[in-house]
Amino acid sequence: MNILHMDLGADSYDIVIERGALQKADEYLELDRKVLVVTDGGVPKEYARTVAAMAKDGVIVTVSQGEDSKSIAQFSAILSRMLKEGFSRRDAVVAVGGGVVGDLAGFVAASYMRGVDFYNIPTTVLSQVDSSIGGKTAVNLDGIKNIVGAFYQPKKVLVDLDLLKTLDSRLVSEGLAEALKMGLTSDAELFELFDKGNINENMDEIITRSLMIKKNVVEQDEKEQGLRKILNFGHTIGHGIEAHEERHGLYHGECVAIGMVPMVSDDLRPRLIKILESLRLPTAVDLKADEIYEAMTHDKKGEGDQVTVITVSEPGEYEMKKVRFKELYPKIQMIGI
Amino acid sequence: MNILHMDLGADSYDIVIERGALQKADEYLELDRKVLVVTDGGVPKEYARTVAAMAKDGVIVTVSQGEDSKSIAQFSAILSRMLKEGFSRRDAVVAVGGGVVGDLAGFVAASYMRGVDFYNIPTTVLSQVDSSIGGKTAVNLDGIKNIVGAFYQPKKVLVDLDLLKTLDSRLVSEGLAEALKMGLTSDAELFELFDKGNINENMDEIITRSLMIKKNVVEQDEKEQGLRKILNFGHTIGHGIEAHEERHGLYHGECVAIGMVPMVSDDLRPRLIKILESLRLPTAVDLKADEIYEAMTHDKKGEGDQVTVITVSEPGEYEMKKVRFKELYPKIQMIGI
Repeated sequence: MNILHMDLGADSYDIVIERGALQKADEYLELDRKVLVVTDGGVPKEYARTVAAMAKDGVIVTVSQGEDSKSIAQFSAILSRMLKEGFSRRDAVVAVGGGVVGDLAGFVAASYMRGVDFYNIPTTVLSQVDSSIGGKTAVNLDGIKNIVGAFYQPKKVLVDLDLLKTLDSRLVSEGLAEALKMGLTSDAELFELFDKGNINENMDEIITRSLMIKKNVVEQDEKEQGLRKILNFGHTIGHGIEAHEERHGLYHGECVAIGMVPMVSDDLRPRLIKILESLRLPTAVDLKADEIYEAMTHDKKGEGDQVTVITVSEPGEYEMKKVRFKELYPKIQMIGI
Repeated sequence: MNILHMDLGADSYDIVIERGALQKADEYLELDRKVLVVTDGGVPKEYARTVAAMAKDGVIVTVSQGEDSKSIAQFSAILSRMLKEGFSRRDAVVAVGGGVVGDLAGFVAASYMRGVDFYNIPTTVLSQVDSSIGGKTAVNLDGIKNIVGAFYQPKKVLVDLDLLKTLDSRLVSEGLAEALKMGLTSDAELFELFDKGNINENMDEIITRSLMIKKNVVEQDEKEQGLRKILNFGHTIGHGIEAHEERHGLYHGECVAIGMVPMVSDDLRPRLIKILESLRLPTAVDLKADEIYEAMTHDKKGEGDQVTVITVSEPGEYEMKKVRFKELYPKIQMIGI
């Protein structure tokens, strides 16, 4: 077992990394109250049931799997349910699922009575290494992702790698894309774990190292004013790709995988592509550069006609700079058609 | 001019109290960017126009006057408008109106891209002395007030008493009920200003003293964990009355006025009633005690079957204690039928 302490002053919390943590969630979480367990249709039902059964008064809400659940309508429906069930300011919300569930349930917890306790039990690699910590909660609006939300820290995060056993291998790989991202910008040894292969054997170390990187970044920049932008490595172009999701059906981590390719040095690129291929992650996409560019300039991280981008010349070393959007065009051409 | 500095660490801000501040809002607020000015149909149009005209790119949104605008639907509509207008994370929202506008616009500002700068220019006594500072933003849901929202501090508040010139006298009085509340719990001299009459002449001092009390309370208890509950003096029963608003048509401050009556000592009560009558504020309501009690127990400040109530024995001195709801029943009978 490993406990990482996220040091954010009054908003500090622990991240418990332990196989089997779900089965003893009541040792880590204060469940002796009304507890809303939010999950989705793709998560094994017994996960949410295990948590709800430990609560004094557990209520399970199961939303549809997929990004469409991150809507203001769903947000409002869950808040109404909490009201109907008589939740007070002293009760709690637990997310049991991937990033969609965590983002949605987190924003619900942030907003119900202006904030109730929130716990996160991520069930995918992507949410275990990335979205479950850092306090970014959100829903989508008018087709724009994560445009409405709050910075709201959980009271505890349980990272239980046993929950990944039932996870589809494509979902495992998309999560590993984010872990690889953190190795590239911040941890050469983490990158080496990927470069050497044996990824499955090193899963605990990969996830723990990724969490430590994210923890350090979030501690230094809780509200995403500066340093936290390194977590967006691969995401600027990635979001431009992801916006066309209905055409290619790629997952978030897959879009990030592609988005990293043009942002590393020419030296590093072949090694990166080899790793991505070994994980069956895509390295290019069947979209026109113009289409990616157009969607990318709508990205919410834009600052006027400029954007802060991260590039990586060697594993563990990044450069951050502000560029005009159009300077990214040649890079987009590398991965589009 | 008076500047009160609200000391909340990274969330600190200034409250500028100055007649004529609206006309030079650009001296106090950073308006050299996209600025969404939220107002309502009851506020003189020139107030919002004055602010919008000073902005680099001002966009005015006018919602319907009244509590119904504090809805998730209206929240969502304003966020959509901001998206459509291309607001970025570096732009700002300004509320120009009373509590409804401030609560709604504040929650919009808290949530758009997880938070953009928020300024408040309150235009009613109630919002000038109370709701515009403290960072409580919210909308209503399923008939329950303020159940969805955020603690989100403004970057600056401009309190311009000249804006009250056009305010209906009934609205002036409802705001003064909240100022009187603060005198009762925390400032005997403020109470004396009411007790001696000449309220209109002392308006600047009444509002400034009220703001100083609220500032001190909020600084000590930003997230409403304890002390801030003294601001709820008169509100527990008041909310039970307000829930039946469609039957009696009373305003929030009027319900609070009634709610204070049973919560002061028998000695103090005649003085309080005399002041309320001089302000043409109600001191009782045409509702059955059972009806008030029923609505009150649904109040969101409840903690199981208990509630924290504030009583005042002498002006400027309060007692805070936790009681069972039913202990309040005899008090409700004092002001119901």
